[in-house]
Amino acid sequence: MTRDEIIADLSLKTDSKIVLLVMDGLGDLPVEGKTPLEAARTPHLDRLAAEGACGLSDPVLMGITPGSGPAHLSLFGYDPTRFMLGRGILEALGVDVEVGENDLVARGNFATMTNDLVTDRRAGRIPTEENARICETINRDLGSVEGAEVRLYPGKEHRFVAKFTRSGLSDELSDADPQKNNLPRTPARPLSPKAEETAGIVNAFLDRVTKMRAGAPRANTVLLRGFARYPDIPTMSSRYRLNPAAIANYPMYRGLAKLVGMDVPQVGPDVEDLFTTLENRFADFDFFYVHVKKTDSAGEDGCSPDKLAVIENTDAQIPRLLALNPDVVVVTSDHSTPCPMKGHSWHPNPILIRAANAMPDEVERFSERACGRGHLGRFPAMNALTLMLAHAGKLKKYGA
Amino acid sequence: MTRDEIIADLSLKTDSKIVLLVMDGLGDLPVEGKTPLEAARTPHLDRLAAEGACGLSDPVLMGITPGSGPAHLSLFGYDPTRFMLGRGILEALGVDVEVGENDLVARGNFATMTNDLVTDRRAGRIPTEENARICETINRDLGSVEGAEVRLYPGKEHRFVAKFTRSGLSDELSDADPQKNNLPRTPARPLSPKAEETAGIVNAFLDRVTKMRAGAPRANTVLLRGFARYPDIPTMSSRYRLNPAAIANYPMYRGLAKLVGMDVPQVGPDVEDLFTTLENRFADFDFFYVHVKKTDSAGEDGCSPDKLAVIENTDAQIPRLLALNPDVVVVTSDHSTPCPMKGHSWHPNPILIRAANAMPDEVERFSERACGRGHLGRFPAMNALTLMLAHAGKLKKYGA
Repeated sequence: MTRDEIIADLSLKTDSKIVLLVMDGLGDLPVEGKTPLEAARTPHLDRLAAEGACGLSDPVLMGITPGSGPAHLSLFGYDPTRFMLGRGILEALGVDVEVGENDLVARGNFATMTNDLVTDRRAGRIPTEENARICETINRDLGSVEGAEVRLYPGKEHRFVAKFTRSGLSDELSDADPQKNNLPRTPARPLSPKAEETAGIVNAFLDRVTKMRAGAPRANTVLLRGFARYPDIPTMSSRYRLNPAAIANYPMYRGLAKLVGMDVPQVGPDVEDLFTTLENRFADFDFFYVHVKKTDSAGEDGCSPDKLAVIENTDAQIPRLLALNPDVVVVTSDHSTPCPMKGHSWHPNPILIRAANAMPDEVERFSERACGRGHLGRFPAMNALTLMLAHAGKLKKYGA
Repeated sequence: MTRDEIIADLSLKTDSKIVLLVMDGLGDLPVEGKTPLEAARTPHLDRLAAEGACGLSDPVLMGITPGSGPAHLSLFGYDPTRFMLGRGILEALGVDVEVGENDLVARGNFATMTNDLVTDRRAGRIPTEENARICETINRDLGSVEGAEVRLYPGKEHRFVAKFTRSGLSDELSDADPQKNNLPRTPARPLSPKAEETAGIVNAFLDRVTKMRAGAPRANTVLLRGFARYPDIPTMSSRYRLNPAAIANYPMYRGLAKLVGMDVPQVGPDVEDLFTTLENRFADFDFFYVHVKKTDSAGEDGCSPDKLAVIENTDAQIPRLLALNPDVVVVTSDHSTPCPMKGHSWHPNPILIRAANAMPDEVERFSERACGRGHLGRFPAMNALTLMLAHAGKLKKYGA
């Protein structure tokens, strides 16, 4: 039996409740001797670490820096080398585009063409408002393209997401993007025979839009890349018999959660709002993924004091979480975003699990280095979900 | 995607430089309370341990004692359960025989036959010089055998390596060796239909040599075992975009390195010479595998004071390595060779990685037990290469 089959087979529906608190990009490296997590005052997280078992988890493989997609799939218990999300899907989720099973999405750029050459792949970074107006016009006037509905969703500046809807579309297409300026437009090429029809639709769309925009001084053509179909991922409910909810206020994470079948209740913009929604909806679900984004944004900016503040702010909410008396609490990050590196990294995530039958180890502080001495050791992050199920009494015995 | 595909896909060519210092058979067990590494004075290795991240690595699988082949493949990032080297190949590499894709090699013994029975499988351990003379005569007089060129390379006493060269040879052959004295000669049997032709060639060779040696009082026949073709291993350059060099002065390790596409610059016989070649060729490559053999030889002899001396001698060279300012330094062993066991063992290797973004853990001493408390935890040795690439900035992000 595969790991997935074993877990699905042993999963049990119970009333116990699991809260997985993900502080995005939390893991870090020391600056002047301490990581933000080590420097922060976190009495509540430290108490959870002291009461529970701690460890370090690798999002994908040792040494591999994950994007948010694979890092989250792993936290939801999915092998991130097996289940993959196309770049277009993440982009679509990020601008809150609903993606369904007949949809093909891609990242788009408005670009400027002069005498049949793409002279500016970013159309001079047109204002976001101009982008929105162009998308609106195209959506209104385009009509269907060879049986496919096409819709553009504006992003920032020259960027948008294109969604093609029709049954049987394939994402096995090369990018329709010359990649460099001063080259002709590039059509999407089918990478397998079954993508030929889709390539025809995509290229007809590109020609139609280019014709519609003819005469415009800029943004008179579009480029598409990262074609991706709706990924075929089994839901957490089918795999683990969970009734899961995502408490997240950034579109991409809400979208990721929807991909694995989570409910996504409304939630306000601040860390406090996450816990308010948790309180309000605690009776309705048995698994809660609570996502704090700003630890990551602070790390991406290379800015340790901000990260420390978000950590302390989150720590201050922990008593509200504990007051709900969840059976299992896990606190971790999806990936590290070390301030000195100003971006995602391969470093492992600190993780704690606090539950009635967790082994209290000698770790008394929730931090990267303290967790490195924990009883859980170092393990692939996708195993965290199995541990949560186990501690929640949601897994039967394997074998006689 | 498989692990190999992911790593190959994410690998990036950069100017950063990696030095992998392998102290062969370094890992050990305590004698009178301390391992040789614990007893040795190693201020420079300790400094690297203090500045970097430490851990323990398993060469193949927990509890599995590796030969030098799998232990090294693992250090070079290859899954040693997937890529396998026939014994004949290791033997050939050990006597500095060049092996190419049309070659089939085997370990050979001169043996003594009396009345059609092999009465001494080692031909009375004839002197090495006699072995060399017989090989020379055979190489001169044999001619080609059914279209195959055959060449014998003398080893010590009765041992040699046989190399058959022709396209389409197969190594799916049983040993041509009765395994015990006082049995008749045994032909090589094909283990699959495609090896039938090769078996014919090998057996014709055995008959021809036995006829050539008829009348000699000893060493009048030969036995062959461990048939092995050139292994089909992708190079480190194709897998990781590295331009790697092996700085090693023992033939087998130079040969192993050549199998994965490393350059093998000339180097003198002593530990100091390794670092001189490293200095002289530092500009020419981006990955350096530096191999210290004598830690292992000392362990194989069961002799702890010698091993300690090699360790201290190597430690004294570390400042020369650091003066080159490599981006990533890893120090480890390929396998353990505990003095009390006088041979390879399954015990994990101590490993340290020192690089700009390595997490400095609380390990302040480079030793087996200190590394067991390190931030890297315990992991399969093949992951060390991924970590080196990551710390050298040679891996892109996985997924969006």
